[in-house]
Amino acid sequence: MVDPSAINQAIGEASPALERALSDVGRQAIFPPDIPFQAAEARGKRYNATIGQITDGAGQAVELPTMSAVMSLFSAPDRNRAMLYSPVEGIPELRDLWRAWQRRLRPEKPSTLPLVTAGLTHGLSLVADLFGGPGRAIAAPTPFWGNYRQTFGLRTGARMVSAPAFRDGRYNAEAIAEALADEPDGAPAVAILNIPSNPGGYSPTVDERRRLLDSLVGVAARRPLVVVCDDAYTGLVFDPEVPRESMFWELSGAHENLVPVKIDGGTKEFSFFGGRVGFITFPFELESEIAEALTSKVKCLVRAALGSPVATSQMVLVQALRDPEIAGQVETVRLLLENRCRVLQAALETVDRELLVPLPFNSGCFALIELGPRVETDAQSVRRLLLDEFDTGVIAVGERFLRIAFCSVRASDLAEVVTRLERGVAKLAGRGAV
Amino acid sequence: MVDPSAINQAIGEASPALERALSDVGRQAIFPPDIPFQAAEARGKRYNATIGQITDGAGQAVELPTMSAVMSLFSAPDRNRAMLYSPVEGIPELRDLWRAWQRRLRPEKPSTLPLVTAGLTHGLSLVADLFGGPGRAIAAPTPFWGNYRQTFGLRTGARMVSAPAFRDGRYNAEAIAEALADEPDGAPAVAILNIPSNPGGYSPTVDERRRLLDSLVGVAARRPLVVVCDDAYTGLVFDPEVPRESMFWELSGAHENLVPVKIDGGTKEFSFFGGRVGFITFPFELESEIAEALTSKVKCLVRAALGSPVATSQMVLVQALRDPEIAGQVETVRLLLENRCRVLQAALETVDRELLVPLPFNSGCFALIELGPRVETDAQSVRRLLLDEFDTGVIAVGERFLRIAFCSVRASDLAEVVTRLERGVAKLAGRGAV
Repeated sequence: MVDPSAINQAIGEASPALERALSDVGRQAIFPPDIPFQAAEARGKRYNATIGQITDGAGQAVELPTMSAVMSLFSAPDRNRAMLYSPVEGIPELRDLWRAWQRRLRPEKPSTLPLVTAGLTHGLSLVADLFGGPGRAIAAPTPFWGNYRQTFGLRTGARMVSAPAFRDGRYNAEAIAEALADEPDGAPAVAILNIPSNPGGYSPTVDERRRLLDSLVGVAARRPLVVVCDDAYTGLVFDPEVPRESMFWELSGAHENLVPVKIDGGTKEFSFFGGRVGFITFPFELESEIAEALTSKVKCLVRAALGSPVATSQMVLVQALRDPEIAGQVETVRLLLENRCRVLQAALETVDRELLVPLPFNSGCFALIELGPRVETDAQSVRRLLLDEFDTGVIAVGERFLRIAFCSVRASDLAEVVTRLERGVAKLAGRGAV
Repeated sequence: MVDPSAINQAIGEASPALERALSDVGRQAIFPPDIPFQAAEARGKRYNATIGQITDGAGQAVELPTMSAVMSLFSAPDRNRAMLYSPVEGIPELRDLWRAWQRRLRPEKPSTLPLVTAGLTHGLSLVADLFGGPGRAIAAPTPFWGNYRQTFGLRTGARMVSAPAFRDGRYNAEAIAEALADEPDGAPAVAILNIPSNPGGYSPTVDERRRLLDSLVGVAARRPLVVVCDDAYTGLVFDPEVPRESMFWELSGAHENLVPVKIDGGTKEFSFFGGRVGFITFPFELESEIAEALTSKVKCLVRAALGSPVATSQMVLVQALRDPEIAGQVETVRLLLENRCRVLQAALETVDRELLVPLPFNSGCFALIELGPRVETDAQSVRRLLLDEFDTGVIAVGERFLRIAFCSVRASDLAEVVTRLERGVAKLAGRGAV
């Protein structure tokens, strides 16, 4: 492996805080000059005997007939790209189209050409490899998506720290600052910002965003802070007063010690869950030295754990992004969810607050409901009872919370789901049927 | 996270050697009882509000019209499975079909239901997480696929150890045993068996396989040995005297300290490079406790780094495996490569052995050629000259080797590729044009 010190230096010159935040693995990572590197150099040569994929010898895929059948709605050059290896960094047309999609509302801030990942979790795991590592503090407001524990903690030895996302039923914009308050001055940290949130289904208002930004800048005054914008649910906002765009853009340039990293993708926004196409984007100018250095590190890590991202579903997403009607199609899905969100909000208005305390939600795919303060059962028991006696599945989050995924329930069914949940809790709380 | 000690114990009871070989991360891994676990329990309920994917509320995908168009050659239920999340362990029908495909020639040995990975490299990275870790010896004959360094070394801190795959132009069946000879007695180790090999394109003969098996059993007499069968190129064997099947089956049960792990997939054998569908399989009975324990660990690690494997290309592979003609279609691709292999073997017969020394090759996608003993240039210089002056791309492997990927060159072009390679080396060696 080539010496990575030159690219670490390029990072340190453009962003000393980001260089200090690198993990040991992140520090060592550099895209090696082996097969994909050499194959990239040989593209377009008369004879290209570099790459271990079966072609007709002129760059066209050799397809099994059964696969040709299902792939035949791709045009010929697209199908070829869907069948053969993607570049490690992703298919160029998709990267360009996605960057334009990301920037359609906020063109004034710098951003790198997104690198393709195998879904959003893979993007998070790349951030964990780059900036996690043993003992590193990872701050996330509770309750948070439980898989962060595996992605950051189990895999890299990082340490989750937390503070409540809601206090007295209201959004706590200082949760990340509180979680990091006791970390020693100067120690780098990672914060995870998941807006709209999972499991909360909440997006902060204009005023809450301002306070959130201020508090993160306050954290950055004391330490290098990498803010992971887990933008899985970006755009799925249902309150016209609440901003729809990622916080990535506001965080960019807010403080020299604060570096946001954007993780997004086609999973939710394009309703393409099975495709596993995500992206990782940094807040630096296209083709800057730091952009090239970070690209080298990400490509090294993608190659180490995956080889290359899936080409087939990249090409499906390319087809979608080429379509001039795409924004309207995405908006149609948003409206479908907006209706479900409103119906669920209305259904929860009337639940017995002794049994169930809904937290505020206005976006995303979920609503989070806390068990009433005097209910003595726990969330797992409620979940199990709902499965066994009420033919209904919900997710138990920690000891006291239940998550309803309104994204996968008909609007006309949501009131009945709430009724069953309330009846289940009542039964366990010894209150009889409601 | 739930305590993993019970599943570690299940592994230790069935295979003490495998339990001893677990890394720290492998020891901690257990599939957590969070969202995918709870969602799996809720499948089939009247109301299923568990999972964060957008459906019509009755389990059907909500598709953007542009994506429906390209997916429309899937039948309706298949398309749905292609658009929505795959289970973490993979789509059940694919796992069953792949197991039958793996076992079509060797039904007598036990094997688990394969878990789906995002391509073969991802399968290797799972083995690295489970059995690598700081300081662990990973033995691979040289030259080996350079990415093993990233997958095992960079990511987990494991240590590559090696010995030559060829000695005096002949296959060295004892390379792994030689590489591990100086490791302390009792220290667990991992060996990587890549047959047919990359970059070598070599598969051992019946006699060489017997010696290889004996030498690995000899290693296992001194230490727990996990043998990763990197079966990327399985089946692509072009010499009728050479066995085509994976060594996984012969290694299974050969010694109590020796545990083979099979990594294979649709990439090469089904010529579906862009699909990124791989599998990881262990040599234990279906539904045994150790099979369940290893499944839990693998699912934990897949979830931690990826979320779930790509569904879209799993469904493409399902279509292929359902087809009764599939074995014939795979054989057609094998014959295409067999012809190229023979043409390249013939073209290399006549090269000047002072300049280029071809190593034996009989399988896979590649031929490996060593620079002649008195040629003073290095492989990178040859590669660069071929790009710059001969319009030809090959891969430089280490200081002295060049790899020709005959899988991506027309049979009718291979003689010219060899001619250009020979002329390039001659020019750098100061021998003038040949």
